[in-house]
Amino acid sequence: MSHFFIVKTLDEVMALQQHFGSKESETIAVTSAFSRILAQDVTAPQNMPGFRRATMDGYAIQASASFGASESTPAWLEIQGSIPMGQVPDFVLAPGKAAGIATGGMLPRGADAVVMVEHTQTIDDTSLEIYKSVAPLQNVIDEDEDCKSGEVVLPAGTFLRPQEVGLAAGMGLSTLPVHQVPKVGIISTGDEIIPIHEDPSPGRIRDINSYTLAGFVQEAHAQPVRYGIVKDDPKALQACCEQALAETDMVLISGGSSVGTRDYTVAVLSQLPDTDILVHGMSVSPGKPTILARSGTIPVWGLPGQVVSAMVVMKMVVVPFLHRIQGYAAPRPLVRIPARLTRNVASAQGRRDFIRVVLENGPDGLMAKPVLGKSGLIRTMIRADGLLDIGENLEGLEKNTWTQVILL
Amino acid sequence: MSHFFIVKTLDEVMALQQHFGSKESETIAVTSAFSRILAQDVTAPQNMPGFRRATMDGYAIQASASFGASESTPAWLEIQGSIPMGQVPDFVLAPGKAAGIATGGMLPRGADAVVMVEHTQTIDDTSLEIYKSVAPLQNVIDEDEDCKSGEVVLPAGTFLRPQEVGLAAGMGLSTLPVHQVPKVGIISTGDEIIPIHEDPSPGRIRDINSYTLAGFVQEAHAQPVRYGIVKDDPKALQACCEQALAETDMVLISGGSSVGTRDYTVAVLSQLPDTDILVHGMSVSPGKPTILARSGTIPVWGLPGQVVSAMVVMKMVVVPFLHRIQGYAAPRPLVRIPARLTRNVASAQGRRDFIRVVLENGPDGLMAKPVLGKSGLIRTMIRADGLLDIGENLEGLEKNTWTQVILL
Repeated sequence: MSHFFIVKTLDEVMALQQHFGSKESETIAVTSAFSRILAQDVTAPQNMPGFRRATMDGYAIQASASFGASESTPAWLEIQGSIPMGQVPDFVLAPGKAAGIATGGMLPRGADAVVMVEHTQTIDDTSLEIYKSVAPLQNVIDEDEDCKSGEVVLPAGTFLRPQEVGLAAGMGLSTLPVHQVPKVGIISTGDEIIPIHEDPSPGRIRDINSYTLAGFVQEAHAQPVRYGIVKDDPKALQACCEQALAETDMVLISGGSSVGTRDYTVAVLSQLPDTDILVHGMSVSPGKPTILARSGTIPVWGLPGQVVSAMVVMKMVVVPFLHRIQGYAAPRPLVRIPARLTRNVASAQGRRDFIRVVLENGPDGLMAKPVLGKSGLIRTMIRADGLLDIGENLEGLEKNTWTQVILL
Repeated sequence: MSHFFIVKTLDEVMALQQHFGSKESETIAVTSAFSRILAQDVTAPQNMPGFRRATMDGYAIQASASFGASESTPAWLEIQGSIPMGQVPDFVLAPGKAAGIATGGMLPRGADAVVMVEHTQTIDDTSLEIYKSVAPLQNVIDEDEDCKSGEVVLPAGTFLRPQEVGLAAGMGLSTLPVHQVPKVGIISTGDEIIPIHEDPSPGRIRDINSYTLAGFVQEAHAQPVRYGIVKDDPKALQACCEQALAETDMVLISGGSSVGTRDYTVAVLSQLPDTDILVHGMSVSPGKPTILARSGTIPVWGLPGQVVSAMVVMKMVVVPFLHRIQGYAAPRPLVRIPARLTRNVASAQGRRDFIRVVLENGPDGLMAKPVLGKSGLIRTMIRADGLLDIGENLEGLEKNTWTQVILL
């Protein structure tokens, strides 16, 4: 058992993502694809919309027939009919003629623009005056303007937002190739930790970490698998670890990650076959006692037992590794919001600090107000809206500095 | 059927949320509570952690016994034993004595601080030197420092993040009262719209809106119910509407929301019993042809058929109403990120404009680059990272202006 940390910086830890791959792919219904990650490039199987389409109610014309038209000198056109919605016009538009069309309708051959109904007046059943000129393709979507047949429209590794799902549907893809959803095994350790349905006698506390960690896994659209609570017993921890390694794609062990006499996680992981300890200790606060091991192809994390430390490491470090397993093409950027600091904050040089803050409205934008309180207090994370990120090279930040807050 | 809009501003539309209430409550397992909204205040049933707890490995002492201790003049204490993890110490700490304790352990009566093991040295089995003084309650969490018994720790209307779920678990709440998940009925209309598994003949296009809208409903943690495609036929639309009203908590109808001859939504909604048209037309671009009706207690939306317009109205207007039904105490603020505009953007005074933008890294922060393209092109929403919000009082924004971008 190591009795000292071998500390890595946050950037050094993040670079270790290269040791891990992504889940294999599966084919699922497009209706289930929201929040999944594409496993293959998606190519447009045909042009979209596939025909020249009106974007306004009005008249399909040759644009040139409207050139020079104005309120005082309208253009005069003959009405050649109107186009039923959802059907192919059964005529070719002759020069100098107009055909009634509604938004979404298909332009007849010979027409290259639509003049809005508001800019026209019918003189009689067959005569139309136009008061405004239109350019070619005005108020029209051309047949391949949204997608060209054969074009890669969604690359592998894309997170599927509502619009990506909508595009796939619009191209007629009723299924999509996506990465499987990773399972994340969660183990809580500690002789003092009891299940939440038990009444704690003094000296014991209920499990919190496996619930917060499961929440982050769900927020990332992966599947938590909770393995309950293991006492401070290396054999029991090893058995539970082996089960989680066999059944999941990433394992989180909270508690026992430090270098004290009761911290067994590193020792247990060192005993597992084909397992390397990649990290033991990060120059991050809170979160120093963090372990990362590679067991076969699976990342195994030892997270601090302190509730705030476990959450900060989960959010800032573990979730990006989870995204890699999920198949993201590139790390998903964190949302950072500028806010003005309400007081001086100290930080140690050489250490990356994440300070819990409340965001409040101020005179010139948001204000970030540090939340005071120990990293064992979950209420400090309830009060917090975000984390202030103070880099390794800073000894602190002064009151009124503009800073970037990572939303919680 | 109304042939004119009666246009409301975005703020006027948003104020109409007061006409709608929230879903009733249900009791669910805390393990399922992530992303749900609390229906009742949650009160701490006991103090948390419930006992005086060490946050470091070291020795429990009376802080006063360490006062004045330093490297050159250590304090000398007698070791009175050590405290087993998860158990109540079976002794009272005498003044001038120390007891070994690990992180998470319970301090014995008589002790009020922990001195870190790094600041001590054992001289023999019973003698300890301390090289640094500690203040009362240093390296300790007091018995009610996280929660006080009887205190409201989570108010009704709270969105349950990982930390709120963790706190509830830590307090022993294995179930929580939350608002039921609303169902949102989605109807696509238009003679030219076909199901996605059909091959479109020219003049027809596959349904996109019901898939993008369902994505937004899922993103908001509600449940979409898709009612398929209804032709431009008032009777068929009425029948489908009535079914959706009977089965869901909010209804979205895309297409047919404008004032053309084929726009039946307002006419159909006007015929329904106990139904008021609250909005027909918003001074918002894209998204002007938007309808909001109240049918009994249910909001019914007529959304533009153009794919981008439908998405913008969904994101900016409909989702806040959905949040109200979900039981949020206050509207969930949108995430807005500052970025510098790469070119001039025009806007009409009196109209709220939402411009699709790509975010790129620039020399002094993010740059917002407008995405050009018609509101009928879904690819413009694939390219876009966010929406630039241009208020009613502006005629546009100049290149290099710092703006706020709403993330998509």
